[in-house]
Amino acid sequence: MAEGGAAAAAASENKEERRIVVAVDESEESMYALTWCLKNLVSSNFNDTLFLVYANNPPPVYTAVDGSGYLFSSDIIATMERYGGEVAESVMEKAKKICRDLGGGDDDQIKVETRVERGDARDVICKMVERLNADILVMGSHGYGLIKRAFLGSVSNHCAQNVKSPVMIVKKPK
Amino acid sequence: MAEGGAAAAAASENKEERRIVVAVDESEESMYALTWCLKNLVSSNFNDTLFLVYANNPPPVYTAVDGSGYLFSSDIIATMERYGGEVAESVMEKAKKICRDLGGGDDDQIKVETRVERGDARDVICKMVERLNADILVMGSHGYGLIKRAFLGSVSNHCAQNVKSPVMIVKKPK
Repeated sequence: MAEGGAAAAAASENKEERRIVVAVDESEESMYALTWCLKNLVSSNFNDTLFLVYANNPPPVYTAVDGSGYLFSSDIIATMERYGGEVAESVMEKAKKICRDLGGGDDDQIKVETRVERGDARDVICKMVERLNADILVMGSHGYGLIKRAFLGSVSNHCAQNVKSPVMIVKKPK
Repeated sequence: MAEGGAAAAAASENKEERRIVVAVDESEESMYALTWCLKNLVSSNFNDTLFLVYANNPPPVYTAVDGSGYLFSSDIIATMERYGGEVAESVMEKAKKICRDLGGGDDDQIKVETRVERGDARDVICKMVERLNADILVMGSHGYGLIKRAFLGSVSNHCAQNVKSPVMIVKKPK
């Protein structure tokens, strides 16, 4: 299959490159958005690379002091950070499996890269789109933190207004 | 080429159908969004139909009375409506030309339908997506009336929040 591989490589060099950022998190909706993207947007007519981006929200730092001192001791914060890292890993594993299952055959399997970054989802996603010089951003419309959304408004809304690339907002049908 | 045509028809019957609504208006940005859609989203792997939707905003009805009676006489309103109809027609012609130029070869030329409806762009686009049971909505992020946007917020924002289908918001690079 060496010749076939060389031919495929030559063909893929002629195709237009696209860098697609997909924002993923714990929500089913973001996995649905990824699935939708693989089925509807990723195309063998392009040389697509998928960047799975996960915002690892740092634990909130409480400066309020109650009777027992700071609300969270450094031990608890360390535990929460470790937990956050494990969640990030599990989200990425799930996302990569979806890419393997839907991302074309062995020869033209889609290229997938992952990025985990600390920070608020709004900032991380917008910065990553810019830094990776992405051609498209794909994201779900919900998720990315229920409580935060109530206070700060929708993450997808924020990103749609702030990134320069086209933005695909995918809703999971109820 | 009758056999080829039949084979193509049989092949297209096996493909998944997608109904893509593209919101168009006088703005260059909406034409850019349409172009982007044809290049990046429309795919020969699907049996795609494009619905070009244009919201024909009715002239504002002024109820304020000045010295000379109502601000606009019925004559002027009729002239504005005629003008609106002509704008709609010219937008659709431009959009259809883009579809012909980019919508594939003669054999698999993409199917295009047009819909012009009176009303505010927000309402027209959202209603049309629902009525046509669209799978995807594509729109620019600007346009659809500068002054209205300042008062009522972005049309794309409103639609992204209110339609059930995935929404692609395309910005024209500066």
